[in-house]
Amino acid sequence: MSETVPAIPTQTRLEPESRGLFISFEGGEAVGKSTQIAALTRKFESLGRNVVLTREPGGTDPFGVQVRQLVQHGVDLNPKAEALLYAADRSYHVATKIRPALAAGSVVITDRYLDSSVAYQGGGRDLGNDVYDLSLWATNGLLPDVTILLDADPVQALARREGATDRIEAEPLAFHQAVRSRYLQLAKENPQRFVVIDATGDIQTVSEQIWQAISEKAAALLSATEPGGGTR
Amino acid sequence: MSETVPAIPTQTRLEPESRGLFISFEGGEAVGKSTQIAALTRKFESLGRNVVLTREPGGTDPFGVQVRQLVQHGVDLNPKAEALLYAADRSYHVATKIRPALAAGSVVITDRYLDSSVAYQGGGRDLGNDVYDLSLWATNGLLPDVTILLDADPVQALARREGATDRIEAEPLAFHQAVRSRYLQLAKENPQRFVVIDATGDIQTVSEQIWQAISEKAAALLSATEPGGGTR
Repeated sequence: MSETVPAIPTQTRLEPESRGLFISFEGGEAVGKSTQIAALTRKFESLGRNVVLTREPGGTDPFGVQVRQLVQHGVDLNPKAEALLYAADRSYHVATKIRPALAAGSVVITDRYLDSSVAYQGGGRDLGNDVYDLSLWATNGLLPDVTILLDADPVQALARREGATDRIEAEPLAFHQAVRSRYLQLAKENPQRFVVIDATGDIQTVSEQIWQAISEKAAALLSATEPGGGTR
Repeated sequence: MSETVPAIPTQTRLEPESRGLFISFEGGEAVGKSTQIAALTRKFESLGRNVVLTREPGGTDPFGVQVRQLVQHGVDLNPKAEALLYAADRSYHVATKIRPALAAGSVVITDRYLDSSVAYQGGGRDLGNDVYDLSLWATNGLLPDVTILLDADPVQALARREGATDRIEAEPLAFHQAVRSRYLQLAKENPQRFVVIDATGDIQTVSEQIWQAISEKAAALLSATEPGGGTR
């Protein structure tokens, strides 16, 4: 029988009850996410904002950590079982950590969110858009206000981390290229929240581009999250 | 925002590639599922058929057992995270155990399947039909050929197990009654595969009713699973 594709739900970028700012970082391996997340955190804190840093999978403890272990160190799962496990982790993460932080007015920065599932699972394993829809169901439709995609050619990114390109074998490279391609497709389909940043620039330049993008995408939210800035 | 309801997919009762017979047992607590499953297994085996007995959650080891532990002995989960975990367990269970057994021509009898999720989660926790649709997505639409619902008033069933009704408190009883009501609703909505059996009769009578129902519902499948009966 044919694959069942869940309906694509209404996509809202911000829940009425949330007053904070929700930013996700996405990208392939070795594109510099950690460095840029740290820089952005310092920037927000220098402006007096409270920042909650988190990640997926495994952003909650003990549940998320246990799921991460199950999915990354357990048996080989069929793709749908794996997608459902990641969605369970995301559902709990959003309900118990991200939404409460947003409701309290914090800036939430997550190292990977639903786009990672699509890029890595949907891209590499042919689950199409089902993974995206599953995440929206799991999170009651919570999408980031801004998604920073750090983009780089996998050959260049992996070379930077490993110091040599000859360790990159043909098959893993094809996988990384499929992931990049799926990310760029997601950015094209969701221009209202995605910003694509060239990750091959120097750290300072990339940081400035990220801050510029967030200022433009989330101007209203930034002022609303000023300390004492009240509700909107 | 409003809850997102996945689309209800095409429901097929039998996959083209399966040659076996897929039977699920459902019902509330203490309705006698184990006893009747054992009796039905003996009946099939006396006819020379191979029977695979399984259950949910936890029908696979180690993955299903780990998920069962996570969902039943871990932290309190939000209902959607819990539903996604059960669906992950079911997806893997179907892909690695149930479908291969059906493809080999076996009779698969499972102690609980997707209707349990709906009756216990959908009924008790207001997730409506989403849980049903999620299971269909997770299993690529695999529904039982026959679902035996052992039905009994919870007061009567629990009294039989515990020997006294006075230990049944008001709130648990209301929960058990909601589960029963949701099961009966499912049977009404899916008459092509459901058989409702009065579980308060004596063991022998109930066994005979179950066998009669299976003979009627799955006549074609029974002859197809005859040893040497060939494919259909």
